[in-house]
Amino acid sequence: MAVILITGGARSGKSKRAETRARAFPGQPVYVATAEALDAEMETRIARHRARRGTDWIEREVPLDLVPALIASDGGGARLVDCLTLWLSNLMHAERDWEHAVSELAAVLPRLKSSVVFVTNEVGLGIVPDNALARSFRDAAGIMNQTVAAAADEVEFVVAGLPMKLK
Amino acid sequence: MAVILITGGARSGKSKRAETRARAFPGQPVYVATAEALDAEMETRIARHRARRGTDWIEREVPLDLVPALIASDGGGARLVDCLTLWLSNLMHAERDWEHAVSELAAVLPRLKSSVVFVTNEVGLGIVPDNALARSFRDAAGIMNQTVAAAADEVEFVVAGLPMKLK
Amino acid sequence: MAVILITGGARSGKSKRAETRARAFPGQPVYVATAEALDAEMETRIARHRARRGTDWIEREVPLDLVPALIASDGGGARLVDCLTLWLSNLMHAERDWEHAVSELAAVLPRLKSSVVFVTNEVGLGIVPDNALARSFRDAAGIMNQTVAAAADEVEFVVAGLPMKLK
Repeated sequence: MAVILITGGARSGKSKRAETRARAFPGQPVYVATAEALDAEMETRIARHRARRGTDWIEREVPLDLVPALIASDGGGARLVDCLTLWLSNLMHAERDWEHAVSELAAVLPRLKSSVVFVTNEVGLGIVPDNALARSFRDAAGIMNQTVAAAADEVEFVVAGLPMKLK
Repeated sequence: MAVILITGGARSGKSKRAETRARAFPGQPVYVATAEALDAEMETRIARHRARRGTDWIEREVPLDLVPALIASDGGGARLVDCLTLWLSNLMHAERDWEHAVSELAAVLPRLKSSVVFVTNEVGLGIVPDNALARSFRDAAGIMNQTVAAAADEVEFVVAGLPMKLK
Repeated sequence: MAVILITGGARSGKSKRAETRARAFPGQPVYVATAEALDAEMETRIARHRARRGTDWIEREVPLDLVPALIASDGGGARLVDCLTLWLSNLMHAERDWEHAVSELAAVLPRLKSSVVFVTNEVGLGIVPDNALARSFRDAAGIMNQTVAAAADEVEFVVAGLPMKLK
């Protein structure tokens, strides 16, 4: 059992890397999508990811209740959660207590039997955003990434499709 | 012969690093600028780069037709292409098929006799941009960087003037 | 004596890492804050940093005159300067000559007796900002980071709370 966090920028090859890592564990892999197909841009992205992944994955759509979903699918193949930043954004839009949800996630990880590979985004390496909501989101994403990284066995930072080992 | 990709953020020292790498190959180096001096900000930047580089470079201005230019200058010293993100931006503004151009570039690289050092930018590590055009551009830049990195012999990520070896 | 530069994105764990590094030197550590508590968002951030650091630090508020402050506090414990990007922003708002100030800082570093740990931000890895002022700032920050990194004994890039050694 291992908890792996794959972080990086937009279109850096994070999902592909995470798929490779998840497939390397025994059992049928489970794809936990935090995205919902709410608009055309998102639908296209989801369809492209699915086409690359292939059809041998169990698929779950989990926009909010990630911890119960990880517990429910525990004991089988590795779970690939793609991605944590979208989960965070969903929590914030739904006015859930994201800090509590992130702590709960970090707390449950050591107790899981099956491996989990998380995809997340680095969003804090640009200029400070003008609007306060974007600033709150990048602060929250940074805290979430630090929290999950601290609880993970391995952390990789992907740039141009190439992973750097952070932990 | 080697294909080297130097990536990093704005003003991270990418161009300087790429110049050092290109000069290390035998022969007179060729500077392939994808920038055109269209406004004062760009003119200043071009002049500053030229002053640092020195006058011993062959200079070419290639905003769009990069593959033919690499073939035409093949057989001499190393080519430094500065930079791929601007080339991509030029292709998009000219309504060229950038995906085809990027594939064509990746395909020609293994057949070249002279070395090529590419400079590119990481643009996907900030908050998701508000406007759809900026989102398309950062997606395209990410795909281009992954494609060229896969075809390159070496990839470096430069932060604060210091290179990290990715490949 | 050592000069250490800790760089990274927003909420990447830079300050915490810098505190750990500064505490490892003998003597009472000095916290040099470049932030001024001008609004509620900043006040909250300052209070949170102080709560984590503990009360055993000498505290200085130095929004502009960093070089004299480093000379004045020299000879005791390590100084933690948090952060250089805010110092740069303060210099620019006060219409000081930031290029001169950065050169002066780099020049004084080898002559100091006590160690200094600098925190800075990477701000150039997102999409090119629309407004010219933001573009100037990210260019200036990149130049400052390269200059201080060149003068430092050690440079670390922090992602998700995990340091990568650059130098």
